[in-house]
Amino acid sequence: MKSFRGELVMNLPARMAFRNITREVEEAVRSSGVREGLCLVNAMHITASVFINDDEKGLLHDYARWLEELAPHAPASRYEHNRTGEDNGDAHHKRQIMGREVVVAITEGKLDFGPWEQIFYGEFDGGRAKRVLVKIIGD
Amino acid sequence: MKSFRGELVMNLPARMAFRNITREVEEAVRSSGVREGLCLVNAMHITASVFINDDEKGLLHDYARWLEELAPHAPASRYEHNRTGEDNGDAHHKRQIMGREVVVAITEGKLDFGPWEQIFYGEFDGGRAKRVLVKIIGD
Amino acid sequence: MKSFRGELVMNLPARMAFRNITREVEEAVRSSGVREGLCLVNAMHITASVFINDDEKGLLHDYARWLEELAPHAPASRYEHNRTGEDNGDAHHKRQIMGREVVVAITEGKLDFGPWEQIFYGEFDGGRAKRVLVKIIGD
Repeated sequence: MKSFRGELVMNLPARMAFRNITREVEEAVRSSGVREGLCLVNAMHITASVFINDDEKGLLHDYARWLEELAPHAPASRYEHNRTGEDNGDAHHKRQIMGREVVVAITEGKLDFGPWEQIFYGEFDGGRAKRVLVKIIGD
Repeated sequence: MKSFRGELVMNLPARMAFRNITREVEEAVRSSGVREGLCLVNAMHITASVFINDDEKGLLHDYARWLEELAPHAPASRYEHNRTGEDNGDAHHKRQIMGREVVVAITEGKLDFGPWEQIFYGEFDGGRAKRVLVKIIGD
Repeated sequence: MKSFRGELVMNLPARMAFRNITREVEEAVRSSGVREGLCLVNAMHITASVFINDDEKGLLHDYARWLEELAPHAPASRYEHNRTGEDNGDAHHKRQIMGREVVVAITEGKLDFGPWEQIFYGEFDGGRAKRVLVKIIGD
């Protein structure tokens, strides 16, 4: 069994933003030399997500508005978590909706994707460097 | 290490519907010959989900109503995504709540399940053929 | 390829509660002898979750309040599922928000975590014993 570990560094300037990281994950799969296996991609931070959906600008805008409705940033007093001195209580909630991780099949050396699947990093408390883990196992 | 890849084709006539796919996944596990490993089951389309819950008719009806509350289909103008000519903006949101994939343990050649766990395909933009990927690795 | 299977038994007295199970999962990783691989941790029951977030008391309180807003327990008549004689319709919904499972990378014999990642069991229909599965594969 082969294994591979890589990290991507994200540094998105906005509080909430999305970035397509499919190319970087594909590069990791190539580097791994794995032909048949599984690829785990997860946010290493608890106010960020990794998820799979469509790379369409309007949709990403819709997600941002919807997440703000489901877990508003303001007022900060809405979240007990913010009594710790943080103001990111909302980000911990948005991350739960969008998810921490994806697991993608690798078949014949490539991400085994449907026609529109793209991997996104979702940032909900931006303005600083955060990491995404790519772990691959297989043969 | 062994690996197995299979696809299930779904074609649910309703816009939103659920289908129990546990039997098909069990069949894939048998075909794989894997005794100890992991089984990934994921929607290959971004307006559909794969999730695990109870096969109880009332519950599935509750999910449909709840998802419609959290991400209503109408009015189409609610979603910027629909400016692309689509009317499935809501489906991309419902899918995020219910999830893209499940990873299930395989132990002694079987899905290692609790007493009520059943695998479902969740369709949120039906009326056409879509695919579910089953990828299995192990020994 | 090595594999390992373990179960954790949870018995939380409250209807809704969270418990940090990171230590127990770390112990399973040590027992497995796996140095490079993947660790699946999933609730074996469909009214409970396993998720990763911050071990901060205020945040866990925020989650409980937010989940109660998104899927209220009362009135029981809100859920068709409760016509079966259950009163846990809400729990099946809360579990979908928080998720069934996490998949964590194992690197150099340890859970490959960011600085604040902790694994939680989320109970939404407590007062009885439930199980969490830990399945590990790798080398």
